[in-house]
Amino acid sequence: MSVMEMSHRGKEFLSIIQKAESDLRHLLEIPPDYSVLFLQGGATTQFAALPLNLCNPEDPVDYVVTGSWGDKAFKEAQKYCNPRVVWSGKAEKYTKVPSFDGFEQTPHAKYLHICANETIHGVEFKDYPVPKNPNGVLIADMSSNFCSKPVDVSKFGVIYAGAQKNVGPSGVTIVIIRKDLIGNARDVTPVMLDYKIHDENSSLYNTPPCFGIYMCGLVFDDLLAQGGLKEVEKKNQRKAKILYDAIDESRGFFRCPVEKSVRSLMNVPFTLEKSELEAEFIKEAAKEKMVQLKGHRSVGGMRASIYNAMPLAGVEKLVAFMKEFQARHA
Amino acid sequence: MSVMEMSHRGKEFLSIIQKAESDLRHLLEIPPDYSVLFLQGGATTQFAALPLNLCNPEDPVDYVVTGSWGDKAFKEAQKYCNPRVVWSGKAEKYTKVPSFDGFEQTPHAKYLHICANETIHGVEFKDYPVPKNPNGVLIADMSSNFCSKPVDVSKFGVIYAGAQKNVGPSGVTIVIIRKDLIGNARDVTPVMLDYKIHDENSSLYNTPPCFGIYMCGLVFDDLLAQGGLKEVEKKNQRKAKILYDAIDESRGFFRCPVEKSVRSLMNVPFTLEKSELEAEFIKEAAKEKMVQLKGHRSVGGMRASIYNAMPLAGVEKLVAFMKEFQARHA
Repeated sequence: MSVMEMSHRGKEFLSIIQKAESDLRHLLEIPPDYSVLFLQGGATTQFAALPLNLCNPEDPVDYVVTGSWGDKAFKEAQKYCNPRVVWSGKAEKYTKVPSFDGFEQTPHAKYLHICANETIHGVEFKDYPVPKNPNGVLIADMSSNFCSKPVDVSKFGVIYAGAQKNVGPSGVTIVIIRKDLIGNARDVTPVMLDYKIHDENSSLYNTPPCFGIYMCGLVFDDLLAQGGLKEVEKKNQRKAKILYDAIDESRGFFRCPVEKSVRSLMNVPFTLEKSELEAEFIKEAAKEKMVQLKGHRSVGGMRASIYNAMPLAGVEKLVAFMKEFQARHA
Repeated sequence: MSVMEMSHRGKEFLSIIQKAESDLRHLLEIPPDYSVLFLQGGATTQFAALPLNLCNPEDPVDYVVTGSWGDKAFKEAQKYCNPRVVWSGKAEKYTKVPSFDGFEQTPHAKYLHICANETIHGVEFKDYPVPKNPNGVLIADMSSNFCSKPVDVSKFGVIYAGAQKNVGPSGVTIVIIRKDLIGNARDVTPVMLDYKIHDENSSLYNTPPCFGIYMCGLVFDDLLAQGGLKEVEKKNQRKAKILYDAIDESRGFFRCPVEKSVRSLMNVPFTLEKSELEAEFIKEAAKEKMVQLKGHRSVGGMRASIYNAMPLAGVEKLVAFMKEFQARHA
């Protein structure tokens, strides 16, 4: 019987979801006072679930906006509480992350929200700010760098991530939440957005995305077999380094707009000095079977997403192509 | 590249989701003034989305409760509007469907909600009530009989269904909604529950469950190849008939509690006159590789779910086993 045919309440699927959770706990060294939930609806659903579960309507909460996803999270929170953008990189086209004393937090803010890695802009937090409010918590959308490196979970109240970048097919959302934050959902919270319901039912309140969770479990198993997230991080650093080096050593032929200290290990955006060549670059790359290199429609240029599953050889091939392309067009 | 790796905005996946929608429209003869949405979160998410999109807080809406799922839908609606149970089969252990003049509708009710097939209790609507309010609409949760037979979509304002019974893996929810009902979501509606957002973005507002949608598309294609839903219904009727006949002709050894005229073609609950033999029945059936025959924990007994994917031979094997079991134990 395929996992797609199993009852989600049968012992076969229970062993799958329990092993997936256990392996993820092992990988991220998740403390026992945190729950792990396997949900649906993407990070976008969490943009509403967070304020609905953690805030009353008048509560202040803070958002650091380093790109499109942080901005979307902020806008959704406006429906449910009193969010404030405490720092925005918009004026600088989302190429930076603020220094931790570079913005002022709201006193009594229930939480401070960041997007740990902005998929579209290629901006990644390398360390994490601490909420000023001793009763506040840090919340991170880690959709696009989840399980790409070790993370000290204890620094966060909530970590959430769509699975589809590093750990599984789209349609699974993972929420890691400190248990004491569970149980305060507002009355108007849809049952499927109530963390308490999912926690009490071990993510089996209704039929979960069983096949996706099974796939995530296989990936967690593989990441452990690779030596865990420290080893995964080393591989990701090596992949990113050769690509950023190729850009930086191109004497301006290729350019990455992101400030060096916060460049993403996952998403590498770059442009061509001669922007009229960009379409040609993407077309020729596709002929060499390197696809999905076009930058997001909102920023243009190119973007190489080099998630966990991209092997070093794939990045090496891209770098070789970039050098060859430059030699022909410089 | 696997469908799990494609960009959901790339032309490859667009062709997949567009063909899936087109095939589903063909299968169900969905009129052009209806939108088809591929969403996440199961029918349970729709329990909240329906009142949030269709009602103001004071609006009356009617629920016919023929089983556990209808009851859950009603309870979720209590958060968002003024729902009333106009008929409940609870006192008779959810073994019936009301006659259409057997309950009184609320004047001005925005909608009348039914669960077209109650998965746990095996009770299925064979025809559909008409809302008394000329401006009201009929809404049906068809999760467990979706695409098992033809349906006149024009009778409904909204049809919704989790994919996992008949058309694909869990994690995909299909919503078929009359276009004039879209666009009135309340301000507090999470963006992921707002039909307008999904309709405007052709179900691609955020990353959809791409693999699941791909699988649904393969199933729609197969159902068309089988001759469409009229042919599928004939197969389902034949399967259900031999099973119900085996029960009814067992001289009481097996019993189905559901009123004959509304017995489900999909879920066949039955008990043993000698209830102490039920565990043995389930155990022996499992040895013959017939699994998941245990009734839902809330009702006990046995339940044979004979969805589209169950071949006639599977039901014949069960019936032969039932007769043999009876011969040994009668």
